[in-house]
This record gives sequence, structure tokens and C-alpha cells, in this order.
Amino acid sequence: MTRSVLAVGAHPDDIELGCGGALAAHRAAGDAVTMLVVTGGQNGPGTTTGRRAEAEAAARSLDCGLVWGNLVDCAVNADAATVALIERVLEQTRADVVYVHAPDDSHQDHRAVAAATVSAARHTRRVLHYRSPSTTRFEPSVYIDIATHLDRKLDALSCHRSQVESSAMVDPEVVAASARHFGAQARIRYAEAFVPGRFVWDLAPPPQLTHEMMAAPEYARAAA
Amino acid sequence: MTRSVLAVGAHPDDIELGCGGALAAHRAAGDAVTMLVVTGGQNGPGTTTGRRAEAEAAARSLDCGLVWGNLVDCAVNADAATVALIERVLEQTRADVVYVHAPDDSHQDHRAVAAATVSAARHTRRVLHYRSPSTTRFEPSVYIDIATHLDRKLDALSCHRSQVESSAMVDPEVVAASARHFGAQARIRYAEAFVPGRFVWDLAPPPQLTHEMMAAPEYARAAA
Amino acid sequence: MTRSVLAVGAHPDDIELGCGGALAAHRAAGDAVTMLVVTGGQNGPGTTTGRRAEAEAAARSLDCGLVWGNLVDCAVNADAATVALIERVLEQTRADVVYVHAPDDSHQDHRAVAAATVSAARHTRRVLHYRSPSTTRFEPSVYIDIATHLDRKLDALSCHRSQVESSAMVDPEVVAASARHFGAQARIRYAEAFVPGRFVWDLAPPPQLTHEMMAAPEYARAAA
Amino acid sequence: MTRSVLAVGAHPDDIELGCGGALAAHRAAGDAVTMLVVTGGQNGPGTTTGRRAEAEAAARSLDCGLVWGNLVDCAVNADAATVALIERVLEQTRADVVYVHAPDDSHQDHRAVAAATVSAARHTRRVLHYRSPSTTRFEPSVYIDIATHLDRKLDALSCHRSQVESSAMVDPEVVAASARHFGAQARIRYAEAFVPGRFVWDLAPPPQLTHEMMAAPEYARAAA
Amino acid sequence: MTRSVLAVGAHPDDIELGCGGALAAHRAAGDAVTMLVVTGGQNGPGTTTGRRAEAEAAARSLDCGLVWGNLVDCAVNADAATVALIERVLEQTRADVVYVHAPDDSHQDHRAVAAATVSAARHTRRVLHYRSPSTTRFEPSVYIDIATHLDRKLDALSCHRSQVESSAMVDPEVVAASARHFGAQARIRYAEAFVPGRFVWDLAPPPQLTHEMMAAPEYARAAA
Amino acid sequence: MTRSVLAVGAHPDDIELGCGGALAAHRAAGDAVTMLVVTGGQNGPGTTTGRRAEAEAAARSLDCGLVWGNLVDCAVNADAATVALIERVLEQTRADVVYVHAPDDSHQDHRAVAAATVSAARHTRRVLHYRSPSTTRFEPSVYIDIATHLDRKLDALSCHRSQVESSAMVDPEVVAASARHFGAQARIRYAEAFVPGRFVWDLAPPPQLTHEMMAAPEYARAAA
Repeated sequence: MTRSVLAVGAHPDDIELGCGGALAAHRAAGDAVTMLVVTGGQNGPGTTTGRRAEAEAAARSLDCGLVWGNLVDCAVNADAATVALIERVLEQTRADVVYVHAPDDSHQDHRAVAAATVSAARHTRRVLHYRSPSTTRFEPSVYIDIATHLDRKLDALSCHRSQVESSAMVDPEVVAASARHFGAQARIRYAEAFVPGRFVWDLAPPPQLTHEMMAAPEYARAAA
Repeated sequence: MTRSVLAVGAHPDDIELGCGGALAAHRAAGDAVTMLVVTGGQNGPGTTTGRRAEAEAAARSLDCGLVWGNLVDCAVNADAATVALIERVLEQTRADVVYVHAPDDSHQDHRAVAAATVSAARHTRRVLHYRSPSTTRFEPSVYIDIATHLDRKLDALSCHRSQVESSAMVDPEVVAASARHFGAQARIRYAEAFVPGRFVWDLAPPPQLTHEMMAAPEYARAAA
Repeated sequence: MTRSVLAVGAHPDDIELGCGGALAAHRAAGDAVTMLVVTGGQNGPGTTTGRRAEAEAAARSLDCGLVWGNLVDCAVNADAATVALIERVLEQTRADVVYVHAPDDSHQDHRAVAAATVSAARHTRRVLHYRSPSTTRFEPSVYIDIATHLDRKLDALSCHRSQVESSAMVDPEVVAASARHFGAQARIRYAEAFVPGRFVWDLAPPPQLTHEMMAAPEYARAAA
Repeated sequence: MTRSVLAVGAHPDDIELGCGGALAAHRAAGDAVTMLVVTGGQNGPGTTTGRRAEAEAAARSLDCGLVWGNLVDCAVNADAATVALIERVLEQTRADVVYVHAPDDSHQDHRAVAAATVSAARHTRRVLHYRSPSTTRFEPSVYIDIATHLDRKLDALSCHRSQVESSAMVDPEVVAASARHFGAQARIRYAEAFVPGRFVWDLAPPPQLTHEMMAAPEYARAAA
Repeated sequence: MTRSVLAVGAHPDDIELGCGGALAAHRAAGDAVTMLVVTGGQNGPGTTTGRRAEAEAAARSLDCGLVWGNLVDCAVNADAATVALIERVLEQTRADVVYVHAPDDSHQDHRAVAAATVSAARHTRRVLHYRSPSTTRFEPSVYIDIATHLDRKLDALSCHRSQVESSAMVDPEVVAASARHFGAQARIRYAEAFVPGRFVWDLAPPPQLTHEMMAAPEYARAAA
Repeated sequence: MTRSVLAVGAHPDDIELGCGGALAAHRAAGDAVTMLVVTGGQNGPGTTTGRRAEAEAAARSLDCGLVWGNLVDCAVNADAATVALIERVLEQTRADVVYVHAPDDSHQDHRAVAAATVSAARHTRRVLHYRSPSTTRFEPSVYIDIATHLDRKLDALSCHRSQVESSAMVDPEVVAASARHFGAQARIRYAEAFVPGRFVWDLAPPPQLTHEMMAAPEYARAAA
């Protein structure tokens, strides 16, 4: 078996902004990837239906499974119900790599999703925190090379038209600049940067994935 | 009197990379600015004479005074002699704002210059640490808007031709990307970012500088 | 236009304790200042009516506008409603400087108000965190000189008679001692100390305020 | 046996400023206390002979032993020789409590003495870092009540007349203010504050010291 | 009077895991010790009645008083009610030493209990944070020697049979290994490690406890 | 090509203590591994010749190359010469993974080797800091599973007979306990823990190493 990856974000577009390049790199390496979007993004610009469609287009463009958490935007709590929701997806995906918001963030939903995911993933060996434009404290030390995946990240982001057009926080130019900035830190060209909550480095290469394992998982397609 | 600013760097080009935009902004605000380059940069690419000329061109392009410390590249210690050297320039410039390397840096000279400057500036009310490509730990919280000064920063940097052409650490593209990255953090367009060692915020505007005070100071021109 | 300042505190007296001197300094520099007190302080010593009057007297003595949040003491959450409340006052005041509790504090209301304010002020260029007696972690690096404003701060504090007389946490002697302690850190005589969340330093002096702009703003007087 | 305490400082007056109250408290509790002053303070105001006499008067006033390290002011290195010097005194005193400068300090000697002491005391169970006026980073969590010892601390400090009169860094008013500031943090009246390097808390009370053990130790008197 | 100690934990077994050895050491030193278990542990393996009996057996084996908070497992909030609950027990026990979870923990109840306890103990001079298997950030600096108490800690833990048998987080082998690991850090054989929130070190030995004071306190026995 | 790994330590036995298990894991994964021992360990127990033989036996038992730095124990500086020494070995090994001491350590040589290695490896994409018994600050987030390599680590350590028998700092029992402690943190059985300086995670598996590439490199055997 190869790696199974779960990326968790509070709103549509959070995952793409934070680790869209890494997810593309995981897919290129043959890993299975599921995105769990905890809320429908009801509070941002755009309609709920529209944002749903945007997220689905973005997931397709990254060739990742998509699961909706169906909690309410701006009202997420890191309580037992949210933890249980994430635990369920962790179980279904058997994820051994989890990406999620950094814990220090000015958006209450981002903090709640980070805390609930850390709780749900308490037995997972690899938890990496990504940065959002609203992250307030971020000292990354783990990087993933996205030189050949930056375009794909920007494409996925551009699917979120309602945000790119109206939110000061979603700016493709800044995304590219940050990738170059973190790339220089990592001594490569373009990088996404992460704060490791816990990262067990597997020295042995993961065995190859068979063709059908690489397809988006059943439950994820159903959910999407 | 208006503000007097001292920027300290270990090698030619360190100051321009770290706070060239801020220095341009200080000049635009009417502040006097002196650059203290502690070594001649003997170890990098380029000849000593060449690097001296490059630094002088860069200082001219930023309209700042330039003072040479004449210590040896890669052999700087944060000892009493280095502290005394910086104290002398602090006294001459009566600087009330000091810019210097961040303390955590992989280059031994950068660490030594940061430590010696913090020591020399122990009575100064404003000490701001800038980032170098070799800085290893940097959580900035103070920013200066360089949107209208970025070109000037890049011009000053381009004076250091020997470095731009040969050192992987000096890359104008990265400089611009980082300015945009930090700008987004500061909620503006382009910014330089700083870690404040100690920053007394003067709420009252500094009185205007007269014309001749704005010229590069006597001793600085002499030294340069 | 000159600066517009918003100070946010969970209870009557929090703002005076944390940044009363800075607010006086802002007024002296011609800045407009609004205090937003999020709760009525129902749980401390003193009656609600009494505490309301004390806060109004204190705001008058500092010549600042006062806005009440009308949330309940000891029951503040950093939820969407609290964020929206602070956003409204930010919009009304067009504040470009925000003062608020430090995030690490043993009082749940202080933590909630800090988090909600950081969220509301996500587009603001200057957010400074002040210290409360219950703050648990505080490494300041930004200071404001309050040598000529300490008396005013103590006067404002003394308006909160119910607290000064009954709460071990509100002790003018400690306030003066801390101002001297932080003053020595800042290399001046008396200082208030701040942890910068984000601080864009404007090098150019703000244009002078006209006379009527300096009066307490309309909505603030109405609210007070 | 009771506790044996070693306080290490770079210059005459450093120990009194940093932990003079704690040393007085240790003496009052019957502990043996030795002060190791690493340099003669040649660089500050005052003559070497004068400073030596001042330090001896201060040690007498605190009823502590005094040992001179005889290194040169502003030229201390954290090298094997300095480590060995401190190891010798640790062995002679069999100290199980060590006080020393905080590691982050703008004075190079303070940093060097802190590092060398941490190295020498690598097997000691209690190492507490005290604050100096030049300390740059200090988040204390261990406190000692000096309400009944503050006068004694100020008396000891006043023995260093050459410093009190000429150094901006040695100001009894600030010392008292900081004691009150840290006292409020510790929920007592006056405190000295420490950052614990390593602190094993002995729950069982140390057995009483006999009379002659409480006198200043032989070697210390000899050295002094 | 001697010391009065209060240990607070979210679930049955948290206290034993985190500071069971320290509590045994406190009892051996003659201190009164009360354990406050905030929830019944309804969500873990085992029945509520069973877990209650296990906790009572463990408290007996450590010779400590036991108080139940009766909140619901996985639903603890750091709100006014929880703070008030802990304040009541603090008042009854007049505790001058408080042990509680470290603030950074992946379990939401642990975070809530840590925050509420820090709030309730805002006037207490000694607050020490212990580590849980789910603690995410822990840099201890205070240690207690448990070499002669480790067996007792393991005995107390073994009372929680439902957990030891079914929870990956409760493993006596790891408990012993961590005690040895932290012991080496403390330069002793076996230690429990703590992060001090605030620790006033009393140099004078506490007066001896009389026989009846050492018994478990009335209210605690009633509650148990 | 597969990974090339360089482990740098100040003294014989430092590398085995800090990352011996990881090196065994790298060898098992087919990576080339070189150990650079910067000094001969002249100051510890044992003769220089004896320690040399011990280190060579340990390197053989781990099947790693060994290079001697030939600097003097307790006199290492992070100066240009030490940096150049490490740069040379980095170049020869073309290492893309570097292991070295954590920067905060009570031993001056450990600090110096850490700093010099970080400087030499400024272009390397993976720098992981290991823990020594004298490390003073260590918050690991990267782990390597050494369950099947712990015996090998202990074997390698036992080659350093002079240290195991005489140094309180080298204790196989503590090594095993720490491996279990960190293993629990990593949610596995036995782990070595690392603080990442910079870690680029390669998602794609490294191509297999041919047989002769896996042998200890030429220059390393020559040096050993």
C-alpha cells in the first residue's frame, strides 16, 4: 500500500491555499488524497451552492476525493461532535498523513478545525500544519517542493472564483510570492511550508499503489 | 532634529538585502541614514576593491552615508573591539534607530554582528532586526511599507553585481517575492519585516530636518 | 487625517490598567481615541450602575470616547457575534491602531476578547497587546513613553473606586512599579509595554488633525 | 546538612542586582552562600581596587562568602578555562543550588558566564537564571519572596557606590520597582524572579545546619 | 501548618499518570493532598461505576483525598461554572500547590481543565503543569524525585484496570520509561517533570504537620 | 541514486547517542552514511587511541563510514576553519541529509559543532538536530522509527566502553528509556527524536542504490 492523505480545512479554498501544491505532489507520487471541507463557507462572498460547485471543481482539478463536513461557517467549535466528524473521515481514509490549519490563526473556525483535527488525529504519525493568510504565528521547518505543481495549485485556486474576485485574503499573486519565499528558505525554487505537529519520517519507500487504489475512494466520490 | 538611523551589516549587500527599502523610506521621510559595513566581504565572490566600489555605489543610490568597519570577512567576533567599533559609529551618528541582522543566522559573522550591535546599542530605544537569506529563525511583527521604495531597493542591490551574479543567496526575484509575502502579512502591498529587539514608538511626529542635515554626514563621507 | 485609535477591554478598568498611559499619549499627539468595554463587569466588586459610572468618569478623565459592548461578564466567547460587535466599532472609528488584551491570560474573558479582536482587526495594520495583572505570558518589545502621562493613567484608574478598593488585582502602587520596570527596559523613565501582533511603522508623520476631529466622535458620545 | 548555594556573576554588583534578595533569604534559612565574581569589573566606572573593596563590603553585608575569578572584564569567553574555574568553585562549595545570569543578554560577559556556568553545573540539580538590566529575553516562572530582604539587597547594592553613582544600569529605584512588579506576578509583595534551567524541588525540608557550617567557608574567606 | 496540595485532572487516571509520583512524595513529606477529578470518564473504555471505583481505589492507594467534579467527559468548557467548581475545592483545601494538565494538549477536556484551573488558581503561588500522553508541547524545568515513589505511582495506575487494558495512551511501560527519561534530565534516577506556571520557592521548611492533619480531609472523604 | 547521509558529532559516542538508530535505519533503507567526529574526545575518560578504536568499532558495527575532524576536545570554535572542515566532508559525501547536535546544549563543543554545521550545510535541504544528554532545550517534531534498530544502536554505544563505564552521561538504560519515551510521542514503539532545522520531504521514493554505492565511501575508509 501507498500513503493515504487527508487534508482538512474550515472553508472551501482553505485547503487549496494552504497545501494545494503538496496535494498535487502526493497525487503525482501515487498517494490517495481526500479533502475534508468542514463548512460550506456560508459567510464569505458567493452563494452556498456556488461555493460547493467551486470546491468540487477544485478537487477534480487536483484529482482528489472531497468530503463535506456540513458544519456552519463561523460557528465551528472544537467540541466532541467536530472531533467525531473528523475521526470518521480519518477512519474511512485510514490516512497516515494529515494536513490542517496552523493552530494560531485569527479566524475562529481555523483555530477550531486545527484543534479538533489534532484531537481526532491523536494516533496519526504525521500531522502537518499549513499556513492561511489569517495565520498569526508560523515558524515552518518542513517543506514540500511544488515547483512542478504550482500551476496546478493556482488552477485549483482559480476554481474558487467567488473568493479570488472578492476576498482580499485570496490573491494568486501572493500565493506565488509566498511559494517563492518559502522555496528560498527550503533551498529550492517553489515550496509549501509546514509546521510539523508530529512527523514520523519513513525511510523506506512506500510500496507502489495499484491502479484502482489511485482512483478517488468510493466513499469520497459518493460524498462529493 | 529628525531621526538618525544606523544600519549595520556584516558584509557589503547585507544591509541592502535586509532593510534597503526601509532605508529608502527613512530618506524619503527626511531622516539621516548611515550604513556601517563591518567587513570588506573578502570571502564572497568578487575582489575586495570591487566589492568596496559596489557598496559605495549602492549607498549612493540609496542616498545614505557609508562607514567601513574594516574587520575581516568570516572572522568577526562579538568581542569588546567589535562592540567598541559600533559604539563609535553610534556616537558619531547619535542614531536613535538601529537596524541589524537577526540573531539566529547560519552565518557566524551575522550572529557576531547582531550580538555586538545589540551590545553597543544597549541604551538605544529602537533596535530592529532584519532578515537575511541565511537567517534561521524569524518571527517578524514590525513592518515598513516599501511599495514606493522596492525599485530603489532592487537598484541598490543590483549595484552588488559580483554577488547577484554568483551567489545563490542574492536573488532579486526572491527579494521581490519576500517583499510581497511580508506585505500580505502586514496588510499592505510590499513590506520589509523586522523583529523588534526594543522599539519605543514615538507618537509625536519628529520635527522637520533642515536641508543640510539631510546630506550624508561629514564623517561618513570621509570614511567612504 | 491623524490616527484613529481603538482600545478594547473585557471589563471596566482593563483598558486603563493596560494602556491608559498610551491612550493619554495618543490624545496629547492629537489622535482620536475610542474605548470599547465589552462587558459591564457584573461579576467583580461594585454594582453594574456604579461600574458604568466609574468607566464613564475614567473615559472623561482620559478625554476618550467610550462604547459599551453590553456582553455579560465571565461569559464572553470569541464567537461570530463578539467578532461582529468589535468589527462594527472598528468600522465606525476607522481605527488604524488597535489595543487589546494579550492572548495568554488566566481570565477567560480576556482570552476571548483578545481572540475576537484579533479576528475583527484582521485587516488592521497595527494591533498591540497590553498586559493585565492576570496575563500569564508576556514578552513585550514595543513601548510607549508615559512619563508625562502616568499621573493621568493613575487618575483614570482611581475613577474605578470599587475595584481599587476591593480587588487584589488593581493596585496603583503596582501600576507605577510596572511602569518604572518597563521604562527601564525601554531605556526611558516610565513606559507601558506591548506585544505587537502586527505593527506597520509609518515613518512619515501623520498630517495634523483639525480641531473638531479631535473631539470625541459622535457615535461614541452617544453610546457613552 | 543544609543547602549550599553558589551565585555566579560576571562583574562586581551583577549578583547583588540579580539575586541579592534571594541570597539574603538563603542566609536567613540557614543556607551556606558563596558569591563567585568572575572579573574585577575593570571596564566600568571606578578603579579595580575600589570595586574589589565595594564587592567585599557587599558580600559582608549579605553575610556571604566571596570568591574572585580574576578574569578580565569584557573579555570573558565560555571556554574550557572559564568552565574549569567555575567547576572548581562548585566542587569546593558542593553547591546544590546555582544562580547565574540569564543566557540572553546584550553584554557579552553575561552571556559567556551564563554559558560557562550551565556547562560547569551540568550535574547540578538546581540552576536558576537571574535577570540583569541588560537581559534581553526573560520569561520568569520561579520566584523567591524578598519582602523581608529587599532592604538588605538595596544595602548590598549601595556598597557598589562607583556603579550606583555613574551607571545608568544600576538604579536602586528600578530595583525596588522590579521587585514590586515581579512580586505582583508571584502574588506576593516583593519578589526576585528566575528562569529555571533545571529545578529539582525537594519536598522534604533540609536538615538543620550546625553553627559553624553557617559561617562563610574557609576557602571563600581566604580568597576574599 | 504544612503544605496543602490540590491535583486537578479531567478524567480518572489523568492525575495518576501526570503526577502520581509527586503526590506520593507530598504525602511522604507530610503534606495534605486532594485529587479533583473533573469528569466521570464516561467516554473512555469501562463503565462509569467501574471507573469511579477504580479512581477511589487509586486515591486510597496514594492515601489522598478524592473529590469528583461531576462534569461530562468530552464536554468540559473553561467557562465560569467550571472555574467556580475548581475555586470551591481550592477554598476548601486552601491549597498552596496546584497540579494540573499542561495547556497544550490534543484533548479538548485537558485544555479546558488546564485553562479553568489557571483561572481559579489566579491567586495561588504555585501552579505546576504535568504532562499527559496527549500533551502536544512540553518543555519542563521543574522536577520532583520519585525514585522511591515510582512503584506507588504504578500501583495507583494499575487500579485503573479498564484503561490500562484498553487504552493505547495508558501504558505502564511508557510511564516508567518517561520517569527514567525525565530523571536523567533532572540528574536523578526517576523524576516527574513539570512546566511551572508560577512557582514561589519557599526556602524555609514548612512546620511539621500534626497527625490528624495528615489524614485525608473531612470533605474529601465525604465526597469519595 | 539513493540518499547520502552525514552525521556530525563533537566527540566519539555523540553520534551514536544522538542518532545511532536513525543511521542504522538509513543503512537498512540502502542509504550511504558517513559519520564525522570532530574531535578525538581527549578530555573524557579513556585514552585518545582507545577512543579512536572505540569509535571505529562503533562505525563498523553500524556499517557507516567514519571521518575524523581532528580538532581538540573542549576547544572547538564555530569559526571559519571548523565550517570549512565540515564543508569539505559535505562536498565529498554530497550529503542531502545532515544530522547534528541541537543548538542549545550545555557543552561548548556541542554548541560550536551545531553552529558550524548549520553554517556549512546552509544549502542542504535536510538538517535534523539530535539530542544529547547535555542538551538544554529540545522540542522535537520529527521522529524515526528505530524499533528494529535499537539493539544495533545499543551495540554501537557499547563499543564506547570507556564512556559507558565512566561517564554519568552515557547510560544505555537511559538511552532505551528515552527511545520508548519518544516512541510514545511518535505513536510508535521506539523512536529517535529530532528538531528539524530545515526538512524538505521528498514524496517520491529515492531510486535504488547499487551494491557498490552502498559500501562505505572511499575517502571515509581512507580517513578511518
